[in-house]
Amino acid sequence: MVDYLHSYDSCKALVTGGLGFIGSNLARRLVDLGAQVTIVDSLIPDYGGNLFNIAGYEDRLRVNIADVRDPYSMRALVKGQDVLFNLAGQVSHMDSMIEPFTDLEINARSQLSILEACRYENPSIRIVYAGTRQQYGKPRYLPLDEDHIQAPTDVNGVNKMAGEWFHMVYHTAYGLRTTSLRLTNTYGPRQLIKHNRQGFIGWFVRLAIEGKTIQLYGDGQQLRDLTYVDDVVDAFLRAGANNAACGEVFNLGGQTPISLLELAKLIVHIAGRGDVELVPWPEERKKIDIGDVYSSYAHIQTVLGWTPTTPLVDGLARMITYCSEHYDRYAV
Amino acid sequence: MVDYLHSYDSCKALVTGGLGFIGSNLARRLVDLGAQVTIVDSLIPDYGGNLFNIAGYEDRLRVNIADVRDPYSMRALVKGQDVLFNLAGQVSHMDSMIEPFTDLEINARSQLSILEACRYENPSIRIVYAGTRQQYGKPRYLPLDEDHIQAPTDVNGVNKMAGEWFHMVYHTAYGLRTTSLRLTNTYGPRQLIKHNRQGFIGWFVRLAIEGKTIQLYGDGQQLRDLTYVDDVVDAFLRAGANNAACGEVFNLGGQTPISLLELAKLIVHIAGRGDVELVPWPEERKKIDIGDVYSSYAHIQTVLGWTPTTPLVDGLARMITYCSEHYDRYAV
Repeated sequence: MVDYLHSYDSCKALVTGGLGFIGSNLARRLVDLGAQVTIVDSLIPDYGGNLFNIAGYEDRLRVNIADVRDPYSMRALVKGQDVLFNLAGQVSHMDSMIEPFTDLEINARSQLSILEACRYENPSIRIVYAGTRQQYGKPRYLPLDEDHIQAPTDVNGVNKMAGEWFHMVYHTAYGLRTTSLRLTNTYGPRQLIKHNRQGFIGWFVRLAIEGKTIQLYGDGQQLRDLTYVDDVVDAFLRAGANNAACGEVFNLGGQTPISLLELAKLIVHIAGRGDVELVPWPEERKKIDIGDVYSSYAHIQTVLGWTPTTPLVDGLARMITYCSEHYDRYAV
Repeated sequence: MVDYLHSYDSCKALVTGGLGFIGSNLARRLVDLGAQVTIVDSLIPDYGGNLFNIAGYEDRLRVNIADVRDPYSMRALVKGQDVLFNLAGQVSHMDSMIEPFTDLEINARSQLSILEACRYENPSIRIVYAGTRQQYGKPRYLPLDEDHIQAPTDVNGVNKMAGEWFHMVYHTAYGLRTTSLRLTNTYGPRQLIKHNRQGFIGWFVRLAIEGKTIQLYGDGQQLRDLTYVDDVVDAFLRAGANNAACGEVFNLGGQTPISLLELAKLIVHIAGRGDVELVPWPEERKKIDIGDVYSSYAHIQTVLGWTPTTPLVDGLARMITYCSEHYDRYAV
């Protein structure tokens, strides 16, 4: 299973959303593996793109500022690339409810543009898309596997689902070599902690670092699974290097599900600061709450040999250290 | 079960796509039931809208020519309505592959506009959306039920899926009273027969009427189910009148599945003209073929008491008579 890493030596890789949390960790790893990396990012404020995410790598990769909504730029950018890691997206479900059309443009329409660009300019490129477990909505059974119906409960989930299925259709109809990874809660260094609209982990970590109180709704017993960013990066690398992944959808998943209360306490414990408090559910949040949710990674384990390997305690410790050291680069 | 029909007396009903095949049959029925009907249709050439579809009803309903892609018109039009039958759409999967962005605008983006219009201008309106069994893609088991995963194989299926799930999200998050009916192959009077890009039934009927040969790929043994348009109209009426349908997705389905070969022979027999021929699969069609496909209507039968009641032979006879009589209004 080491071979897939060697395959990136001298490989030309395009990473959309490459200044974001997961994209930048992936881009840095690709550079380390000898790839010629081009990052595409529009640095939309609040979305997670941050030039500091590639600190130390500025001269070893190319940054192309462009918006994936711009079809002409994308046509030029996909030319000559070996692999496209397609991570650009609007990832806040709260924002998707406030600006549903922006979410549709970025997460659905742009994906169609990117696929059309690949179809015409570079039909043999390998494409790995970042899907999300939000596509499933409220679980009917646990853990979620890829056969669970998709019943998203927010606009973001609908558009991410559409974005994923455009990738599948372009595989079936045109033979494009696409894969989708349905990410669960990813955490680690370079994650956005500026606001609380992109998931709870970054926000919990920030509150702890600041010595503040993490508020949890209800009894805090809702179970979640978390995947450390290096493990997610490894899944992208495996998918992009293995043709058995073409036309496939894979869940990522964490090791053992953990309750939000346990997680918050663990973060406070590792940070050595902060506090945890239970508060009643706000009515409008209760309506869209999906209860316990965690995913099975059995399919990707079988096909690509991937498992999450970073213990939660280690991953959180690394994240908290990184966020504390570089607080000024992320918090403001 | 007669009550739901009475509920349309004096009801204000908006029918998007109301000059199209199913929309016009629904609008005519609503007028007969005493409803005050407003049709919204953009009469995009080749999409199925046809002013002749409301012949005899022109003075008994209001026709508002507008495109559902226009958010401002939709805001004005939904005001004061009791029920919205949301049938406007691009329904050709071939066209969706040639013009994927147009398909996305009409089938996904417009649905979001319509829902936003309802949310702000008329949050208590009842909304019934026309989904499609194409959302399921290639069946994993038969008959298809609502728990079957959605894995569309064309751009149209992806966008219709997104359009449906926007309806579900607006129910969950904002309490809009939405329902989706996943239509299978609908047939009957006022169906488009001008070209072969909107399903096979209209085209088979046209060929038979013209005394031409119906060509089938392979052995013609692929099974399909068909629903007569009056039965589909009845499903919309039941869904729009019953709050038990809110937030629900229902398959429609035909009586007994029939092979394309049997169906073509039946059409030729009833028309008393035409012929049937088996030809080899074209490579690019084989790739997107989904084999046998038919749906279970058990869920809508349980909740709304709907079953398909029109025997195929009767429905086809009525369609063939209508198409023959009004050939000039539909064929050119």
